Amino acid sequence: MNGKYKALWLNESGDLEVIDQTKLPFAYETVVLKTSEDSVRAIKDMIVRGAGVIGLVGAFGVYLACRESRSMEEIEERAKVIRQARPTAVNLMWAVDKMMDAITNSDGNWVEVARAEAIKISDEDCQKSLSIAKHGCDKFEEIMIQNGKESLNVLTHCNAGWLAISDEGSALAPIYEAQRRGIDVHVWVDETRPRNQGANLTAWELQQSGVKHTIIADNTGGYLMQQGMVDVCIVGADRVSRQGDVANKIGTYLKALAARDNSIPFYVALPEGTFDFEIVDGVRDIPIEMRGEDEVNIVRGIDSEGSVGELRITPLESSAMNYGFDITPNRLITGLITERGICKASLQAIENQFKDLL
Amino acid sequence: MNGKYKALWLNESGDLEVIDQTKLPFAYETVVLKTSEDSVRAIKDMIVRGAGVIGLVGAFGVYLACRESRSMEEIEERAKVIRQARPTAVNLMWAVDKMMDAITNSDGNWVEVARAEAIKISDEDCQKSLSIAKHGCDKFEEIMIQNGKESLNVLTHCNAGWLAISDEGSALAPIYEAQRRGIDVHVWVDETRPRNQGANLTAWELQQSGVKHTIIADNTGGYLMQQGMVDVCIVGADRVSRQGDVANKIGTYLKALAARDNSIPFYVALPEGTFDFEIVDGVRDIPIEMRGEDEVNIVRGIDSEGSVGELRITPLESSAMNYGFDITPNRLITGLITERGICKASLQAIENQFKDLL
Repeated sequence: MNGKYKALWLNESGDLEVIDQTKLPFAYETVVLKTSEDSVRAIKDMIVRGAGVIGLVGAFGVYLACRESRSMEEIEERAKVIRQARPTAVNLMWAVDKMMDAITNSDGNWVEVARAEAIKISDEDCQKSLSIAKHGCDKFEEIMIQNGKESLNVLTHCNAGWLAISDEGSALAPIYEAQRRGIDVHVWVDETRPRNQGANLTAWELQQSGVKHTIIADNTGGYLMQQGMVDVCIVGADRVSRQGDVANKIGTYLKALAARDNSIPFYVALPEGTFDFEIVDGVRDIPIEMRGEDEVNIVRGIDSEGSVGELRITPLESSAMNYGFDITPNRLITGLITERGICKASLQAIENQFKDLL
Repeated sequence: MNGKYKALWLNESGDLEVIDQTKLPFAYETVVLKTSEDSVRAIKDMIVRGAGVIGLVGAFGVYLACRESRSMEEIEERAKVIRQARPTAVNLMWAVDKMMDAITNSDGNWVEVARAEAIKISDEDCQKSLSIAKHGCDKFEEIMIQNGKESLNVLTHCNAGWLAISDEGSALAPIYEAQRRGIDVHVWVDETRPRNQGANLTAWELQQSGVKHTIIADNTGGYLMQQGMVDVCIVGADRVSRQGDVANKIGTYLKALAARDNSIPFYVALPEGTFDFEIVDGVRDIPIEMRGEDEVNIVRGIDSEGSVGELRITPLESSAMNYGFDITPNRLITGLITERGICKASLQAIENQFKDLL
């Protein structure tokens, strides 16, 4: 892809440029990252978010570190700082380690080697996303035939599109593929409280790409499913256990329950790096991050004059609790869509399909 | 109760005074309703909301109409306007009709008769609320014994407290009773998007009464139930079918699914006037109101300087859809708590318990 992706790209000066996701959807601004320190700040300040995109900013961050360093020690020191920019981001650590392997195994032309390796990692991510797109959309077409419908209503939660994973995302990739195939697709976008990634990022992404969509409160999906207004649910994942339990944005589990109750297929799309083969029982053993209560108390938006502002929406005297993720047990998941195809969410099926990784 | 209730009361001038619920939780203000037209405006502008409280404002509205009218024709005309202030509020129509019955059957001292009848209707509501409190709290105590716990974690959705129904609400009434009985009770308050009645009204109400509570995003309840952090769910109802299907605030159904999946009791509290015995299959036949999309797009809150303001939280180019309610099928409901006791949510049990009303 020549170093150009949807959420980040090398610009003409060879710097890394990223979409400032903290400003979306109210303003489209990009930030130029000239130094490895810039890349660390972009990750810490959530200018970029999403497992895949964070990993790539880390990879290109190491390239920026090579540009500004005069010794391998300097590069290693900077890489270490990048690696720790988000302690829970497994993908970030993996990408930085892969970069450092390539650099230390090279014959010394560090900047060029790092640039090539970061592009290679990114291009591989894009390939995975395109494979997920294909497998997921094939399934969409099957569902349409089964339902005897000419159009497809997809429900998604949070943002697992091209703002999160290069170059088309995981959960949204099959939707973009459906659009390319000329399918009449419409997306129900869960607002995704408390951080509103659905209303802010997924809606914006789909709108940029001209995909029909409607934002709904997170409470609404169950009723839509009861009324036959959803054909399929598809979400991304933060971590998937060896038996196929899925940690994803808080609220995913409730939609999976509603899908099951209404016999609607519920798919999880993920690049295979999202598996954590060390954990079997995800409900019991995947740790869930508790986040600050201000994410519940305070919302960001645009006022009638077009300025971005914040408001507190809860009583000053009340407190809030904010878990970032929940676990959807494998029994509620119709299938896992990875770059290798669709896999049942069960220990046996996963161990079969991914035995080379175990 | 001498015309004094928590959300509305006759003040010293004999006017009706109500808490302005549009200002909560950011400001406590009351509005004095001096004329029947004031009462209509209070209902239409949602200064008051909640089935019970709307009904009572309608009843006292007829009393205000008597004060300002010189003939029965005038009273009747004004009563008709009150009756239509909220077309879907069955309780409002019922209360206005009951008022007019009393007035037309009286010997002419309309103002006094109307005042007495409105107080009678309100006092009856209070009695129902107190009975629900008792039956519900007895069940809470049973659950605590069953679970072998010294404290009780209750999850509720929307607002069915004293801001909605005189004088302690339906779903919240057993919680206030638990507090009186010295039970260590804590409430998980669903934010209740899109109108945030949980974060704005329930949290405020509980805080006023000194009941421990924590606000959570609507997405969070499933995870809390998975982790054993919820002992019982209790919600109110807008309409309940003859077989016990419950129309309540959108999102109720998702919580009922999670409760079932985690073997947690799920109760619905309602005064018996909430039954609609004409409808059997609620999922199929209870009509659901579609509301304006701006309830999803725009939130109200308080800025850092303490002023109340509004922000748009969705992209200007995206549209939203906003259903007000969903239907929880009777199979997911552990029991219906009414002033007569606890009833199974089934056709047979309901017909048995309420045969005098059929």
